[in-house]
Amino acid sequence: MGEQQLENLLNQMTLEEKVGQLVQLATPFFKGASDRGEITGPMVHMNIDEEDIKRTGSVLGASGAKETINIQKVHMEESRLGIPLLFMSDIVHGFKTIFPVPLAIGCSWNMELAEKSASIAAREAAVAGVHVTFAPMVDLSREPRWGRVMESTGEDTFLNSQFARSFVRGFQGDLENDLHKVASCVKHFAAYGAPEGGRDYNTVDMSEWQLRENYLPAYKAALDEGAQMVMTAFNILNGMPSTGNEPLMRGLLRDEWNFDGVLISDWGAVKELIPHGVAENEKKAAEKAMKAGVDVEMMTSCYVNHVEELIEEGTLEESILDEAVLRILQLKQKLGLFDNPYRGASEQEEETYILSAENRKASRELASKSMVLLKNEGTLPLQQDQKVALIGPFADNTDILGPWSWGGSADDTITVAAGLSQYLNENQLLTSAGCGIETGTDEQMQAALQKAEQAESIVVALGEHSDMSGEAGCRADIRIPEVQLELLKKIKSLGKPVTAVLFNGRPLDLREVIENADAVIEAWYPGTEGGNALADLLFGEVNPSAKLTMSMPYSVGQVPIYYNRYNTGRPKGAPDAQERYVSQYLDIPNEPLFPFGFGMSYSRFIYDELTISSKRILQDESLTVSIQVTNTGDYAGEEIVQLYVRDLVGEVVRPLKELKDFEKVYLHPGEQKVVHFTLTEEQLRYYHANMEHKSDAGEFEVFVGPNSRDVKSSSFSLELK
Amino acid sequence: MGEQQLENLLNQMTLEEKVGQLVQLATPFFKGASDRGEITGPMVHMNIDEEDIKRTGSVLGASGAKETINIQKVHMEESRLGIPLLFMSDIVHGFKTIFPVPLAIGCSWNMELAEKSASIAAREAAVAGVHVTFAPMVDLSREPRWGRVMESTGEDTFLNSQFARSFVRGFQGDLENDLHKVASCVKHFAAYGAPEGGRDYNTVDMSEWQLRENYLPAYKAALDEGAQMVMTAFNILNGMPSTGNEPLMRGLLRDEWNFDGVLISDWGAVKELIPHGVAENEKKAAEKAMKAGVDVEMMTSCYVNHVEELIEEGTLEESILDEAVLRILQLKQKLGLFDNPYRGASEQEEETYILSAENRKASRELASKSMVLLKNEGTLPLQQDQKVALIGPFADNTDILGPWSWGGSADDTITVAAGLSQYLNENQLLTSAGCGIETGTDEQMQAALQKAEQAESIVVALGEHSDMSGEAGCRADIRIPEVQLELLKKIKSLGKPVTAVLFNGRPLDLREVIENADAVIEAWYPGTEGGNALADLLFGEVNPSAKLTMSMPYSVGQVPIYYNRYNTGRPKGAPDAQERYVSQYLDIPNEPLFPFGFGMSYSRFIYDELTISSKRILQDESLTVSIQVTNTGDYAGEEIVQLYVRDLVGEVVRPLKELKDFEKVYLHPGEQKVVHFTLTEEQLRYYHANMEHKSDAGEFEVFVGPNSRDVKSSSFSLELK
Repeated sequence: MGEQQLENLLNQMTLEEKVGQLVQLATPFFKGASDRGEITGPMVHMNIDEEDIKRTGSVLGASGAKETINIQKVHMEESRLGIPLLFMSDIVHGFKTIFPVPLAIGCSWNMELAEKSASIAAREAAVAGVHVTFAPMVDLSREPRWGRVMESTGEDTFLNSQFARSFVRGFQGDLENDLHKVASCVKHFAAYGAPEGGRDYNTVDMSEWQLRENYLPAYKAALDEGAQMVMTAFNILNGMPSTGNEPLMRGLLRDEWNFDGVLISDWGAVKELIPHGVAENEKKAAEKAMKAGVDVEMMTSCYVNHVEELIEEGTLEESILDEAVLRILQLKQKLGLFDNPYRGASEQEEETYILSAENRKASRELASKSMVLLKNEGTLPLQQDQKVALIGPFADNTDILGPWSWGGSADDTITVAAGLSQYLNENQLLTSAGCGIETGTDEQMQAALQKAEQAESIVVALGEHSDMSGEAGCRADIRIPEVQLELLKKIKSLGKPVTAVLFNGRPLDLREVIENADAVIEAWYPGTEGGNALADLLFGEVNPSAKLTMSMPYSVGQVPIYYNRYNTGRPKGAPDAQERYVSQYLDIPNEPLFPFGFGMSYSRFIYDELTISSKRILQDESLTVSIQVTNTGDYAGEEIVQLYVRDLVGEVVRPLKELKDFEKVYLHPGEQKVVHFTLTEEQLRYYHANMEHKSDAGEFEVFVGPNSRDVKSSSFSLELK
Repeated sequence: MGEQQLENLLNQMTLEEKVGQLVQLATPFFKGASDRGEITGPMVHMNIDEEDIKRTGSVLGASGAKETINIQKVHMEESRLGIPLLFMSDIVHGFKTIFPVPLAIGCSWNMELAEKSASIAAREAAVAGVHVTFAPMVDLSREPRWGRVMESTGEDTFLNSQFARSFVRGFQGDLENDLHKVASCVKHFAAYGAPEGGRDYNTVDMSEWQLRENYLPAYKAALDEGAQMVMTAFNILNGMPSTGNEPLMRGLLRDEWNFDGVLISDWGAVKELIPHGVAENEKKAAEKAMKAGVDVEMMTSCYVNHVEELIEEGTLEESILDEAVLRILQLKQKLGLFDNPYRGASEQEEETYILSAENRKASRELASKSMVLLKNEGTLPLQQDQKVALIGPFADNTDILGPWSWGGSADDTITVAAGLSQYLNENQLLTSAGCGIETGTDEQMQAALQKAEQAESIVVALGEHSDMSGEAGCRADIRIPEVQLELLKKIKSLGKPVTAVLFNGRPLDLREVIENADAVIEAWYPGTEGGNALADLLFGEVNPSAKLTMSMPYSVGQVPIYYNRYNTGRPKGAPDAQERYVSQYLDIPNEPLFPFGFGMSYSRFIYDELTISSKRILQDESLTVSIQVTNTGDYAGEEIVQLYVRDLVGEVVRPLKELKDFEKVYLHPGEQKVVHFTLTEEQLRYYHANMEHKSDAGEFEVFVGPNSRDVKSSSFSLELK
């Protein structure tokens, strides 16, 4: 069906049918659903009936070839004009084969594996009948208290943008020709990752300069990569809820960025304009969201009950409705649904593809490349001839998939105990929880200590259960629960080598864990193959290479803490700084416990002096930055070499460091390689006070190193014509 | 001297002489100073010489009639054109008679006493030769980590604006005719109170809407009241350091607000444009600050070394310099310095006025009205026939003046022990520190416990030493130091009535203090008469009436927490709210430990139902809101009755509550009074998305109560023509 045919279709539609396309309801509302639950109540509540459902444009959360095919079939029979349903779902970090949470994937700095993970997730979902995934979430965040930080790749604009592109490529690829792909919906537009106090859905407020410089680029990157959809954020941005924010949506997203795909509200967000206090009722909420350019209303019924009336009374122009409907029809067309409403849904392919050995292998690989080694006093890797005690509430726990993994199942999940048993005989592995996540008994503790005493090396698996992060999973205290710290301290007091492994979805205050363990691995929520991936690392089958993409705070009182902050006018540690009157805390350092980019290896990588191809570049020239990296350790391994820049003088303030590029280099013991980076004028641009994005002539520092702290530096100047 | 004569004077000045007027240096630089210290070094460092000093326009920090007269005298002899020096100092909450810190004064909600405190401070300073005070500081703050929060009157725009006006009236009054007044310099423009992470001088970033709605009004109020000067803030605002921020200073302050007084940099802030990274050198820093409209450079020499050159090479127009000089000359003229360069300086008046009994009385009164009773299980007031143990590092400590009280002296300060001894015989009062502020010994602890055991009632005086707050006194942990909590717990375990009294300059996490005391008084830093004021409260001579003007956070992980926050789209506790998917923390409440406006009395005030004069008002009508308050307790006392409003639907989101007015009512036991408030359309205006300040027709809730939480409510609607 071509554009003209879509227009013709639109012209045949009644007002009611048009509005129907803008509605998204959950699976149980649809006749073909296997479990329709008790939907009569919600339907009354929403003031909708079976006729409305027949006209509905899309389905939320359906999956499984059988069910999606069935729902579509019934729908195609009942739709007057034969307009197929769109099936949309949250496929965030895997569908059935769960990959590490995005914050962990971020730490891999591995765009290829990130893309692959999205590609596998897409195909698993596509064969289950899903057409659109509400991913990637690319919200930049500096807020460890915020539960949804696990869904972000971190605090860096450049990295988040790279990941945004990788995920979109992986999910969406050649959408029109490849039935194994799903359309990608980038979210949450905009700046959902900056809620005040780290409390989900809370106030977001920032200058336009901050927004453009740091928060917007990753959304833009996803759109540049072709993401078909955008989801609104729950939060206000500068006083206006995103979902009714006309300057943001129609002004910036549509007019400035020329986004012509489908804009969908987050769950219930149109109706939430009422509690936000910018709409007195559902009709006004519908008007505001429509005028802002929100095409699809998810799970509330402001549009279905009021858009017709708004148009009839002249409050809303029908052309606004037509545009929205056309965008939805265009997406259905791109997905080929008018020709094949069932697209890739296939029960047979579900059998063969989902959770295939290959998919599991990809998850295992990415998980092992996502776990960050934070400390190692020669304790790791473990020896396979040792007796190992595996202690802690995550010792044999399937709750390692992380939030947003509803398609995953505990039965398919490899626990740490299961993973270690691949490397150890039964009598070499002594497992005991020691306590629960938040509570424990003396008996549990004693049982664990008894086992630990028998071992030569102890692995303590600690963390937060997955409901402690994720959506609405916000915490004011970002330490692991007291009972677990107590367990760790008691274990440590045995005097044996202790490795702490952490399962959690946010940067934590890890001071006490670091003090009480000889080795520490931040495993995040590693997904289906988590136990295997961890075992691969613990026994040195894989050499740790991951690097933090969020600063690990010293304490919650230091939040927000991020590497690309500004110098201030009174930087601590400057040569002429006073002792007191500098920007500092009296009781803790300004520096985080672990900086952005930090992560250790079992090997040791030495960076030689940095060299640059010129001390001066012109606008159309490029600079080559080179550094020799040598593996002086005993293990082969991968090192993520990072390039940062500081613009010494700007029209506005410029960050102390900004990540501009990185290279992964694999080195055998004793091997050395020269890593080259190319810097161009384009990479030196930034938002000026008037929102112009350009570079300035002047001096720059350039840094290369294994993290944002321990760098070699040089400098150059940029000249502009 | 009239305006024309000032112009004539300006025309006679050389470029060097003009620039000299823009320079402010500390006292030791001037020949007439009593202690010139080792200034040769700094002079070389700053590249200035004695000739530059002769041309200098103002002096920082000089005080004392003898010295200021002497400096002025020498200067008048050496100044070619006989232009007198301006003497400026930080007279923040008292000069020699120290009043409570502004955060405490805020809690008095007493505009008359606030004005009186400023008036006394002004006169003490004026007779000591001071012409300008760098006060009031009116920076709104929601940041307990920030050390300088003690210098703010709190988190509320309306209250801060009221205090801004009171302080300006008190300091400045009829400046031109009253030699006992000093010119007022409002600071720190703008939004210095919102540093990221609560770290002083750190990044400030917010939307223009947030800035105008919450942060700017108090500065504007001070200017509307006639404040002669404005000081720049150290921080950046949306990427641009305030001191070089042309849109903020020339655009908003000068052009929009028509401010034609003197704008001065904060200490060294012009040169700090270099570390901020928006100027490559001092010359560029001078250019940026001059172009932004900063008239006086405090303590650095960018202007004196570069402005001439900038004008000669045409980078800067001489008219910009002339404007700045003229503004300074105008201020000198307003102060009458051309006629009497010594103005109010008088050694004889210093003797009679400073620290007079009347001044002390005023300080004592304000201090007792600033201390907030947070808890009282019938423990207070104390009986004068009891034996009282006074324990804690603040038991007999003169460090209760608070930061920014350099003129005050320990010798003049009434400690808690001294205060209590006014009410108790020597053998009734047992005093022991128990520990230091941050450390302690077992012996100290034992000695204290021994004394406590002998008493019938125990007062434990705890807190932070004054360097733990104030400028650059920022903390990530906002609990009182561990050793003091330990002391309190041990004292509590004796089973006797325990009253905890806190001396500190920020809202603290007081959970453990509240748990371990039967009565708690937040005494802040109460000033010279602190011990007496506290004793007056403890023994019921004064009935507590103060109310918090900042929310007391539940924990540091809850920061920022303020009463006038927004509802969000998913408010916790809404009738249809889900259990999980609401804006909340999993581990702590959303509510602070003590809300804004909270404070107890020894008596009990009952609020009857609220009545309103109409359910509907038109634009030019006013609404009367009435409530009957009854004192049902046994003590006469003052109650601060608070009026809040909520605009239910706005074009942008509106706060859950906004303080609109308050009334203080004094009631004897059994007495009742009806308190009336008048609300008009003007009070319902707010900043819309396009920065228009106006009201909207619609529904409003109105609340009256003893604090922002425990209110009676009603509603009305506003109709606009």
